Order: sequence, then structure tokens, then C-alpha cells
Amino acid sequence: MTPGSKGIIFIGDGMGGRPLPELSGKTTLEAQDTPSLDLAAREGECGLMDPIAPGRPAGSDTAHMALLGYDPLEYYRGRGPFEARGVGIAVQPGDVAFRCNFATVEGRKVVDRRAGRIKAGTDELAAAVSQGAGEIGGVQCIFEPSVEHRAALVLRAEGLSHQITEVDPHEAGVDYWDAKPEQDAEDPDAAQRTAAIINEFVRRTREILDKHPVNQARRERGELPANIVLPRGAGTAMHLQPLEERYGLRSAMIVEVDLVRGLGEYLKMDVVRVPGATGGQDTDEIAIAKAVVAALGDHDFVLANIKAPDLGGHDGDYQAKMEAIAKVDRAVGYLLDNMDFSAATVAITADHSTPVSVGDHSGDPVPIAFYGMGLRPDDVQTYGERPCAKGGIGRMRGMDLMNVLSNYIAASEKFGA
Amino acid sequence: MTPGSKGIIFIGDGMGGRPLPELSGKTTLEAQDTPSLDLAAREGECGLMDPIAPGRPAGSDTAHMALLGYDPLEYYRGRGPFEARGVGIAVQPGDVAFRCNFATVEGRKVVDRRAGRIKAGTDELAAAVSQGAGEIGGVQCIFEPSVEHRAALVLRAEGLSHQITEVDPHEAGVDYWDAKPEQDAEDPDAAQRTAAIINEFVRRTREILDKHPVNQARRERGELPANIVLPRGAGTAMHLQPLEERYGLRSAMIVEVDLVRGLGEYLKMDVVRVPGATGGQDTDEIAIAKAVVAALGDHDFVLANIKAPDLGGHDGDYQAKMEAIAKVDRAVGYLLDNMDFSAATVAITADHSTPVSVGDHSGDPVPIAFYGMGLRPDDVQTYGERPCAKGGIGRMRGMDLMNVLSNYIAASEKFGA
Repeated sequence: MTPGSKGIIFIGDGMGGRPLPELSGKTTLEAQDTPSLDLAAREGECGLMDPIAPGRPAGSDTAHMALLGYDPLEYYRGRGPFEARGVGIAVQPGDVAFRCNFATVEGRKVVDRRAGRIKAGTDELAAAVSQGAGEIGGVQCIFEPSVEHRAALVLRAEGLSHQITEVDPHEAGVDYWDAKPEQDAEDPDAAQRTAAIINEFVRRTREILDKHPVNQARRERGELPANIVLPRGAGTAMHLQPLEERYGLRSAMIVEVDLVRGLGEYLKMDVVRVPGATGGQDTDEIAIAKAVVAALGDHDFVLANIKAPDLGGHDGDYQAKMEAIAKVDRAVGYLLDNMDFSAATVAITADHSTPVSVGDHSGDPVPIAFYGMGLRPDDVQTYGERPCAKGGIGRMRGMDLMNVLSNYIAASEKFGA
Repeated sequence: MTPGSKGIIFIGDGMGGRPLPELSGKTTLEAQDTPSLDLAAREGECGLMDPIAPGRPAGSDTAHMALLGYDPLEYYRGRGPFEARGVGIAVQPGDVAFRCNFATVEGRKVVDRRAGRIKAGTDELAAAVSQGAGEIGGVQCIFEPSVEHRAALVLRAEGLSHQITEVDPHEAGVDYWDAKPEQDAEDPDAAQRTAAIINEFVRRTREILDKHPVNQARRERGELPANIVLPRGAGTAMHLQPLEERYGLRSAMIVEVDLVRGLGEYLKMDVVRVPGATGGQDTDEIAIAKAVVAALGDHDFVLANIKAPDLGGHDGDYQAKMEAIAKVDRAVGYLLDNMDFSAATVAITADHSTPVSVGDHSGDPVPIAFYGMGLRPDDVQTYGERPCAKGGIGRMRGMDLMNVLSNYIAASEKFGA
């Protein structure tokens, strides 16, 4: 590898889109003025990328797995392990992990899935849960609180399965559910056992939490008690080779989404938190760009993600999405102005499309532009879905991105002799 | 999925081609006037598609498997199971299936592979075969007649193999063959046993049929006796998940080729037969198009195929192929005029190329144009191999077609969180 060369994947979350009549048949990316993205496209090499495979809508977790070279079709077994790793549980292969909420129930009815957005006292509640439900039927139950109402649970034993149905009904005003084996569970016995453990865990959290002093105090103050833990999003922890070991690159991740941060932790990347990176429309994109430049001081590779474009897509708000794209453009502009791209390459892309017209992730490919060292620049003049489709890259898969980037920055080893 | 949205794959069989000097270096598709295909290309999104993989010539069965998302490289074990399913045998995974002809032999010499194109009496002949050869050496032999001289045979037992050589020599005037294990059979013992069963089956059909009253009557009328059954095209039945279960789409198939119909039956699609759909140059393409529109009344997805372009390709007759392409264009025109494409998407493509200059299937990619909802229209102006190569899709694989189409009609589920 060329000493000192740097690689960056810079992601506008959900930035790909579809044509909109309100924009005279342009996409938000094509319609927004993006001088820095356009410069990268004009002087770089462009293409389209299928994050997972053509036509397959990707989640945030599966897309980032693929873009980092870990085939989600092979390795993805639910989001739970990334959530749990994100709150600091040292997840081990074989663990079944869940994200959880402290919630408020009356009988079986969910009154509030966030227990009145509880902020204080969850450490004590979690400690009580750990003490009273730390082991159920020979299964170790590791429970850790996260921010506000959030928490994570890991079940550790042989013979468990993540293929169970949800406990959290995902809405208030209805009963919470009993976990059951999924109909097509690969190992029905393991799923049956795991469902039974989870149901017992939930039962115990009610018993433990209802009478807990923290909740008594909350009731006295007229606040909703956090009197149950509702697990969801079960996932089996798989062995994923650490990113640095895989590519030989000291790697950092600068993103705004906990789930993706959890993946970064899981891959043993240095996960950098940036003050001002809110994950919202108001995020400080320049702070993020500065953090990328700073991280490259002692890393070879950084994956960065600005969440805002995805929000406008989900909300069906093309103006919000265009403003968010302008933020991505300014962040990229900062990189172009403040880095030496004779010794670095940035791939500017999205983790998936979130078209305003769909209001959710779609399976459309995303544009990608490589700018910096090692390229064969093409004649694409602007950044966008249709312009990039005519680029020199043609159409590539997310799974190939790390290898393509590593090749440009001369960080690849020859395969064969 | 968007309620009521519809997906169509409309196939001109073998419609892809190569440039011809007789057409000033154009392909038949490029040279023929195709106003409706051109409209779809102009307002839609275009590309090239490799039905199986670049450079790999596809059969009708393997190509349609791939286009429906079942990897033939993984699942194809010969055409027999689709033939047998097509004549109504409830093939089960593990069965070894054959297509068969009633034929005429003298000694071992094949006089006529179609027994004088026998039309009547094959039900009685088949019943006699079933009675006298319904079980051989512990193997159940299920034999069913089809139209004219055609029939199908299924062997049902543990430990069989389709990797045996043919009995039918595929031409008259030569001896028929004894089945033997293929040289590279994965399980030589199973292949040896299967070959022995088949040879005994053939021997018994001679014994049973030669003296049968139907054949005595034929001889008296000066007609050739159907005095043997010649199996060919052995295939092992694989488990293929039903199409509706796989994609969540109520699915119909409207095609003219029995082999592909058999695949449709195998995938539990509703196989619709259309009066006037002859499978020849004289087919009623508007009847086919009307049937597609009608089928979409109570289905979410239809695969349709017009066979004629393939015939001109096989015959090396560019004029016939061009006339057939005009038929495909008229059928597509009917769809464009009679469907609401704000709630539907059609993929107009071919299952493989059958270039006039080759006279057989080739491994060249085929053009594809998507027209309807969910697209990013590109600037391709006409339908054809070279114009579509410049489209926004770039180059895709047949295996991805169902996912791409499902994405456009909003029938996809997100993978991941």
C-alpha cells in the first residue's frame, strides 16, 4: 500500500431517488444545485451501485454491511447484535440479541412504548432487572440500559434461535404479544425454547419493575412508570472478521445512526462521535466533515454518513430532502477543499434510495462517484442518478465497493501470483 | 405493496439477434419498424440483460427459470420434470422424469419417431403400458400420454439419477440406444440402476404395444404401429418454491411452449391457454395481449411469451423473424393502449437471442425496456440491442428481473432494518 494514502466512503443516507413531477421529472439529487458533488463527478469516475442486489430494498444495517464488504445475504441474522454492541455489550457469536424499550403497561395493554420518555433512573431499573432476571432456565440474560427508554438484551446459551416473533407490538393502545417460534424457523425447538425464555424474561421485568422505588417516585410525580421491558428485533450474532484485519486499513466510522454505529463497533472500527452531528435536518455537516479529516490523521479509511436526506425521503418531503442534499454537498466541499486528493480517494454515494415518491427505502440503485487518486475519469459532468448511470464504472454492487476503493488507494493485495 | 399494482414480463421468444449484412448491419429488431416497442423504450428505462450469464446460451426452460428468479445453475436438473408436470403428472422432488414419444421400430431400427404422427388410441396404449410396466424392480413408473405421439414418464423411488444417456436416437433410420450411466454421473450406482430400469421399461413397452389391438387396427389400415415408447430428456425433480410464495404475487403464465407451461405449472402459476395462440408464425398476438390484460384482473403478475421470433431465428429466415417481431410489437401496443401504466410496469425483453446468422440460441444479451410506474426514464429513443445498451439500467442478469420488477411496482420487502 502507498504509505499515507487514504480512503473515504461518504454516504448521503437514502440519497438516491426517483423522478418527481414537482421537479419536472428530475430527482431531488438531479434538481438540487450541488457544486461539490458535481465537481467530484466531473473530475472523477461515476456509476450506479446496487447496495445489495438489483431491485432489493436495503435496510440501514444490511446496506452498510454490504458497502463494507460483508455479504448481508450470508451474514445478516437480524439487527439485534448491532444494537446490543452499540450499547456496549460484548456480543459473542451465537448470542441472540434484542433491542428493548422500557415501557408502560396496564395489564397487557401498552400505554406508552417509551415509559413517558424516561430519562433518569434506568440504570437502577436495569440493575434490578439484571439481578432478578440475569439467568433463566440456564440461559444467561445480559441486560444493559442505553439512552432514555432504550436498552439491549443478550441471551447467551447453546441452542437458541432469533427466529421468534415480536413481544413489542410497535404501537400503543394494544396488548403486547407473547413471543412464538416463527413459522419457518430453521430450528423450531431452539425457537420454542428462546420464545419461552423471552416470555419469562418479560414476565419477570414486570414483577421487578412495577414495585421498584424509581417507579414509585415516578408515579408520585405523576409520571408514567417504566414497568415492563419490551424486546424486539431479535438477531443472532455472527462472526464477522474485523474490518482492519480484513482490509489492512486502520478504520474509523463517523455516522449518526446508532444501529450503524453498532455495526462499526461490531467490526471493531473506531466509532467517532461528533458534537453537533444530530442525525436530524439541523445536523452540523461541517463538523462531520472536519471530523473525517481529523480521523484520517491516524486512520487509513473512514466511512461517514449524513442521515438527513433519508428523513426527507421517508417524510415524502422533497424540499427537506433537497436541503439535506445541500448539506451533503457542503460536507463534500469541505473535504475537497481540505484534503490532498493526490493521496486519497473518496467514494460519494448512498446506502440506498429513499425516494420521496415512495416514502421508504426502495431497491433502486444509487449513484456513486469516485474522486481522487488511481481513477480513470470519465465524461460525466454532474452528480445524480441518470448522469452517473452513463459513467465509466457502469453498474457495480455494494459488496465490491471496499475492493474498488482499496484498489484506487493502492491498498489491495494481489490475489494469485 | 401498492394495492392493485401490476407487473408484466412480456417476452419475444429468441428476439435478440446479431447484425446482418442483408439489413445493412442492423439486427432484425433494429431493422423492423416497432412503434410500440420504441414508445416503451423512449418513455421507459432500458438496458441489456444476460438471461443466465454473459456468453451462456440459454434454453427455453433455463432462461424462463432465471427470468422468474430460480437460478438454473443451481436448480436445473433436466427438462423432464417440466415436461411431466406439463402433461399433468404431480411430480415430486426426487422423481426422475422423461419426455417420451410413441414410435415405430422394426427390430432395433427406428422407422418413425412419431409412429406416423398417431393421434387416436394413445390413451389405451398408455393404460396398457401402465398396467404392464407400472412397477419395475421396486421403482414406480408413472406414464401419462400427452397430445399426439407425446407422453411423459416419471420414475419414483429412492436412489435414482437423471444422469443417464438417451434411448431415443433423435433420428429415424438408426437403432435406438440402450441407456447407460453418463460418464461423469455424480452417483454412478444410482445412474446404473436408473439406466437398467429404463431399458427394462422400453423392452416391456415393445412387448405390450406390439400386440395391442390399437396397433393391430393401425396395421390393418396401413398405418405405422406405435410399438415402442422412447424416453429422452431425463431430469430430476427439484424443490422449487412456488412463485406466489416467493414473491407474494398472484401469478399467471401465458405462453405457447409446452415446456415453459410445464415450468409454470411446476411453480404453481396459473397457466392460461389462449385460443388462437398457435406457437407459430400465424399466432394471434392480439388474443395473447387480451389474455394478459384479462389475467391481470385477478393476478398481480403475468409472464407472457410469443414464440414466433425464435422460429425465424432457428430457420435463418430474417424476414420471418422480422414479421414475428412486428407481432410482438402489436401485442405490446395493445397493452400500452389498454392498461393503466400509472399502476403497472411491463418489462419487454427476450428469453435469449436466436440470431438468424447462428440459427440457434446464442449467449448474446437481450434488450430490455421497462415501461410504467416507479422508473427513472433514460434517453434511449428506440428499442433494440444497441440502443438499449446505452440505457439507464446498464447490464443486468435474468436472475434479478423479478426483484427489479417487484421494486418498480412496490411489491418488495425491505431486507434489514
